[in-house]
This record gives sequence, structure tokens and C-alpha cells, in this order.
Amino acid sequence: MLVLITYDVNTETPAGRKRLRKVAKTCIDHGQRVQNSVFECLLDAAQYAVLKSKLTQLIDPECDSLRFYCLGNSYKKKVEHIGRCPQWSQDDVLLL
Amino acid sequence: MLVLITYDVNTETPAGRKRLRKVAKTCIDHGQRVQNSVFECLLDAAQYAVLKSKLTQLIDPECDSLRFYCLGNSYKKKVEHIGRCPQWSQDDVLLL
Repeated sequence: MLVLITYDVNTETPAGRKRLRKVAKTCIDHGQRVQNSVFECLLDAAQYAVLKSKLTQLIDPECDSLRFYCLGNSYKKKVEHIGRCPQWSQDDVLLL
Repeated sequence: MLVLITYDVNTETPAGRKRLRKVAKTCIDHGQRVQNSVFECLLDAAQYAVLKSKLTQLIDPECDSLRFYCLGNSYKKKVEHIGRCPQWSQDDVLLL
């Protein structure tokens, strides 16, 4: 199934910027970056549970947030992109 | 239906920051901000078409991107939130 993951990580502190890098790196390892803080991951239920657990451990729940959207298997017709195409490389971890 | 809207707007220039403010304002007017650049909007098909058209006209397609995810009407079980709850007010237009 396609799982959409979006995150907000508070980068006001060095610790926050470190969390952001770790969250981004973990998402990069499991899916396709489509915007700066938006990833699409093709996962089965077990992989999804593991990834969610990993990400949950990386964030500070007082400052940061994660959202997961399960788009199922028939996701292609549910998604529309307008504008600049995703051009993220595996190494991009932008701090915007 | 629930439409998830995510955007990346390039804020390297004053014009980009102006586009970001306009995109955010338009999304605020039509839905619920759940993360900095992520909105959930309850729309019918006509409202969705109008909003998509508005947003498309606001961005610079060479620099910015919009993504739309149609989550249908049975969306509650498809969404999971972890961490800090959305605390955006109608006037928040952050430039992170």
C-alpha cells in the first residue's frame, strides 16, 4: 500500500535540526521524497509498523509531528501533482 | 471528500515569499492546517476544482509544487497523527 508521510520538525535548536536530519534520512531510506517534508512509501503492513515506530522514536512529541495517510493500493488516481517535479536526491536533507 | 493538499514554495526571493503567503492564505480559507505546508480540506468535486485552479494560478510552476491527495469520504481510519497537535491559527503563515 502507499503510505504518505508528512512531518513538521521544530528546527529552532541544534537538537531539532539533528532530529530533522534523522527523520528525513529514515524516510529517504523507505520511500520517495515528493516534497521537502512529504514522502510516499510503498510498504506492507509490517514494514509500515516498523517505519512508524522508528520515526516515532526520532521525534520530540512536544515539538514535532508526524502524519501518516494510508492511500491503499489503488492510489495512482488519487494523487495529482502540479508544478515543479520532485527533484530530490537521496542525499538531500534541506533545512527550510 | 477529504482532499489533502501539500505544497513546496521556493522562498528564496521576496516574490516567492509572497507566493507562499498567498498559497497558505488560500488553503487556510478552505481547510484545516495540520502541518506547516499540509492542509486537509473537506470539499465536493466542484469546490475541489475551484481550489485547485486558484492554487495553480498562485504558484510559479518552475519553482514551486502542489500535490493533491483525494482521500474520499472514509478518511478517518486512513489518517494517523503522532506528536504535537496542530496548533495553527487562521492567521499563521510561517516562513520556515
